[in-house]
Amino acid sequence: MTFIEQLRQRWQAGTQVCVGLDPFLDRFPARFEGDNLAIFHFNRDIIDATADLVCCFKPQFAHYAAVEAEAELKATIRYIKDVHPDLPVILDSKRGDIGSTAGMYAREAFEHYGADAVTVNPYMGSDTVLPFAEHADKGVILLCRTSNPSAAEFQNLEIDGEPLYIHVARRAQQHWNANGNISLVVGATAPEEMARIRDVAPDLPFLVPGIGAQGGDLEGTVRNGQTAPGEGLMINSSRGVLYASQGEDFAEAAREEALKLRDRIRALSGV
Amino acid sequence: MTFIEQLRQRWQAGTQVCVGLDPFLDRFPARFEGDNLAIFHFNRDIIDATADLVCCFKPQFAHYAAVEAEAELKATIRYIKDVHPDLPVILDSKRGDIGSTAGMYAREAFEHYGADAVTVNPYMGSDTVLPFAEHADKGVILLCRTSNPSAAEFQNLEIDGEPLYIHVARRAQQHWNANGNISLVVGATAPEEMARIRDVAPDLPFLVPGIGAQGGDLEGTVRNGQTAPGEGLMINSSRGVLYASQGEDFAEAAREEALKLRDRIRALSGV
Repeated sequence: MTFIEQLRQRWQAGTQVCVGLDPFLDRFPARFEGDNLAIFHFNRDIIDATADLVCCFKPQFAHYAAVEAEAELKATIRYIKDVHPDLPVILDSKRGDIGSTAGMYAREAFEHYGADAVTVNPYMGSDTVLPFAEHADKGVILLCRTSNPSAAEFQNLEIDGEPLYIHVARRAQQHWNANGNISLVVGATAPEEMARIRDVAPDLPFLVPGIGAQGGDLEGTVRNGQTAPGEGLMINSSRGVLYASQGEDFAEAAREEALKLRDRIRALSGV
Repeated sequence: MTFIEQLRQRWQAGTQVCVGLDPFLDRFPARFEGDNLAIFHFNRDIIDATADLVCCFKPQFAHYAAVEAEAELKATIRYIKDVHPDLPVILDSKRGDIGSTAGMYAREAFEHYGADAVTVNPYMGSDTVLPFAEHADKGVILLCRTSNPSAAEFQNLEIDGEPLYIHVARRAQQHWNANGNISLVVGATAPEEMARIRDVAPDLPFLVPGIGAQGGDLEGTVRNGQTAPGEGLMINSSRGVLYASQGEDFAEAAREEALKLRDRIRALSGV
């Protein structure tokens, strides 16, 4: 099954929640102290506690690379594929290079780490995107309008009356989606921008960061981002789920948060 | 010494050549067959053969990650720092994320891999750049006008009469260079664009890809890119040096190519 087919199946199962696996060792519960596979074991507990509530998992590469835990990243993805094979995994590494080098990053994400999809930065254009997109069964999720405070510095600059992010979205929809495997990153902090992007990219799934600490607008996201009731979105929560409790009940607390988020989205989604 | 101080010292020693360490196992000489540290050993020979001719080395991350050779990347950088301590190392990983995540990528590049500088994608704005730039002794090299065929798709879009790459260059010069540690990637395939960028970013070093297979313009690069005779540029050659010969004379052939390139640049530079 392709990334998009897996994603659709999870939407049909009633969830548009993505859980971001961003390990912070110093926020782990006490039980992981002295465990030299703490990251993998923590992830495993979170995954098992939330798998039936999510449409995908999204490990963020830097959190592993910074602490030399690439092996635990690989083990985490392998665990999901083995134990929860219905769930697609997005490697959030925001790769961006060209030609054969982009092809090597595709190999890194899809072969070495075994991910089903990868986030990609489109600043260098088609030469970056197409070497990923030619892997027709894999997902390619392009930064379009991100959720961070400085996103607008370049992304909102107006070109012929339309902001840069609209040019990115239109090219993604019209030129890069031949295999039907392109998605866009659109932040929950920019619901008006999301509506404009949905207009020019009616089919593309949106990966939505910015719910939680960044103060994103969940209601506006669901209203402006869905392609149909219950479809079109991967709404990410990382810290809000992972660190809902730092006590021994962390996995139950994570499940409770994921469940709350899933149900808030369902209530807003018109399913 | 900071990255920029090291670079200046190398410019004063008469070279603006950067050798890119992009290993392709299938282009290695026969002697490396069956060597399970082939990448590291090949790099070591290239480094020793060219160190006195270059201003920096630039390993490209994907070439290591795709073949699970992160340990050899680390060993390569460590080798340069140990044996050729005057030479700065750029980790060409084109990272781009925000806030604490960008901070983790900085940690990956500067602590885990021990690089002196890293390439960064500015699409997400200040939130991406500043967590790298606060490492005042390290270099932060921002994609500005890249050398690839599709670079113009977004980078050349006109905003208020100026292309996007000029907006990036101006922000880099005016807002992000408080520590004097910002450089820009400007392709040799776009010498006119390089002249425009030099106008708005008079101080920033340029890392210049695109010489060689991409058909970049070396004369235009030196004329339009230098900040002073013999200064301002890191002109990259990867495959042209590394695979000048695939025979047993590969290291001598690499040295010869690096020497030719250094001397061509010197002849053009007005030193």
